[in-house]
Amino acid sequence: MISSSSRSVIHDVVEQFVREELSLENAQIAGAVWAMLDAGGKELRPRMTLLAAAAANPAAPPDPVLASYMELIHVATLIHDDVVDNADVRRGKISTNNVHGNRFSVLAGDYLFSWVFKKVTLGYDNPVPTILSSMLSEICNGEVRQLRAAGNLALTRNQYFEIIGKKTAELFASCAEVGAIVALQHTTAASGSVLREHPSVRALRDFGLAFGTAFQIRDDLLDVVASDAALGKPAGSDLRDRKVTLPLIIALEQGDERVRAAAQDLFDPAKAGDNRALIVELIAGLRTSGGIHGAKQVVEHFESEARDALRRLPPSPAASELEALTHTLSEYSS
Amino acid sequence: MISSSSRSVIHDVVEQFVREELSLENAQIAGAVWAMLDAGGKELRPRMTLLAAAAANPAAPPDPVLASYMELIHVATLIHDDVVDNADVRRGKISTNNVHGNRFSVLAGDYLFSWVFKKVTLGYDNPVPTILSSMLSEICNGEVRQLRAAGNLALTRNQYFEIIGKKTAELFASCAEVGAIVALQHTTAASGSVLREHPSVRALRDFGLAFGTAFQIRDDLLDVVASDAALGKPAGSDLRDRKVTLPLIIALEQGDERVRAAAQDLFDPAKAGDNRALIVELIAGLRTSGGIHGAKQVVEHFESEARDALRRLPPSPAASELEALTHTLSEYSS
Repeated sequence: MISSSSRSVIHDVVEQFVREELSLENAQIAGAVWAMLDAGGKELRPRMTLLAAAAANPAAPPDPVLASYMELIHVATLIHDDVVDNADVRRGKISTNNVHGNRFSVLAGDYLFSWVFKKVTLGYDNPVPTILSSMLSEICNGEVRQLRAAGNLALTRNQYFEIIGKKTAELFASCAEVGAIVALQHTTAASGSVLREHPSVRALRDFGLAFGTAFQIRDDLLDVVASDAALGKPAGSDLRDRKVTLPLIIALEQGDERVRAAAQDLFDPAKAGDNRALIVELIAGLRTSGGIHGAKQVVEHFESEARDALRRLPPSPAASELEALTHTLSEYSS
Repeated sequence: MISSSSRSVIHDVVEQFVREELSLENAQIAGAVWAMLDAGGKELRPRMTLLAAAAANPAAPPDPVLASYMELIHVATLIHDDVVDNADVRRGKISTNNVHGNRFSVLAGDYLFSWVFKKVTLGYDNPVPTILSSMLSEICNGEVRQLRAAGNLALTRNQYFEIIGKKTAELFASCAEVGAIVALQHTTAASGSVLREHPSVRALRDFGLAFGTAFQIRDDLLDVVASDAALGKPAGSDLRDRKVTLPLIIALEQGDERVRAAAQDLFDPAKAGDNRALIVELIAGLRTSGGIHGAKQVVEHFESEARDALRRLPPSPAASELEALTHTLSEYSS
């Protein structure tokens, strides 16, 4: 039930926020939020928040407001991701009439973060505000590490897992954790720190971490296996941005020298320019060397880790819906 | 006593933060924080936090950690201010080796905000976390309005006051308010919402608002009255950035057509280029039309409003130190 109805509920809450909080003065920020709201997307983060709550405590009423806050935090990170670095500006990728682009995106994201934190501190006791602010600092940590790892062919599998754990999985884990904690608070007076150790909260947090890790690896895989049309952006964008992801790491682990040479060429800052042919060659190499196959196996590993975590919960319709979500992770045709 | 000793205490706390929280992985963020810490500055915000606390409740021990958080929030806003917009990039103002400049600055600021909020939610009960997140959303609001007002010669005095109230004065007001509330919590069990209405808290918040407003107008004045050397940047930078500040607003209120024509010319986006002569002419016009004199009078008005607010407090050495701070506001020679 939640998966079919939550979408409109969440949209209603977000719409109310935009109407009530973003005055005419802030029409620009409202516009940025709308543009970033994952209109055609699956709203996975608020769904996970609601489902984790129902799985942890079926007796608690759903909290679509908390779920919406999780989506808005995600939107704020997307707005900040949108701040292009100078290299991109120099390559002329952004429209010239977007005069206040970067500075405005920074402010819109900051506004959204601070608005959500204000609401969260008003509406939820600890540990929720602390979990969310810790999560945000972990996301930034992961993003900074990713920036520093750009073009680094020596990046190890474990370093990659650490980066995606922070930048992506942490948000899913926090959705599951705060959803579960807030639901449990309806029927227990236990303190926040005790609730964080509750077996269902631990299980749901572990589920979110494994799910989020698989989700990001799948996203990184789609960049090299999907068509431009399916992605809505050119395939191989990560490679073009010198992002080292799991298919490449595995191909390099296999000692594929053709892949290494192509990647070195592509990542050489001195050779900026039209590198479409090099990207096509590199993607072909990822396939023949087993990089793509290996990364798909790793997705399956985290998928089954996510399902193992769910088995630590009492059976419930919500837990079944969470399990159903994991089966979407190994679909690469969308 | 506080004004002479707080500086080193605050530096110690900030240094400890950088050592303990920013691992080697985060050397870049640590560097950005250090670069932005107002090394030669007056650390007005933490001083105001400590002095407001002592003025509200002389019996409470000083809280240099809270004062440091206020400085770090200020540093985070400075880091985000540093994100250049595309226009600046196009004019070649940023160094080309600063490849990850914008994106990194965004992440470093986000990290600092979220780290401070995590610490604040762990260490302080409401209303402190709510005051700080509300304040941050107001700052963003003010900054967005300032961006939208760029080059707008119809900007009124009241719209200008609203912008600087949000972008600058709100932070000083919050420093005074949370300093006072936390100090009072040492000797009263009153709830946060009751404490916000405490006469001393109200007086100190009003003081911070008036002080911050005068502070920003003085800053805007310095841009047109100080030398390049004193400012550490070229005089007239605000004019070059199409920022409409009080001296210009007053000159336009006086109906000075020479100023209007020069400003129209300078702010015309089609005429970008070397406009040094135009800026010199415009600054001369601000002087002869009374714009500079008028803005100085407005600073004095807010200075005396700040002092009036202090008179609502019981006399104390800290209140006297706060009053002494207001006398620095009408010095334009530094």
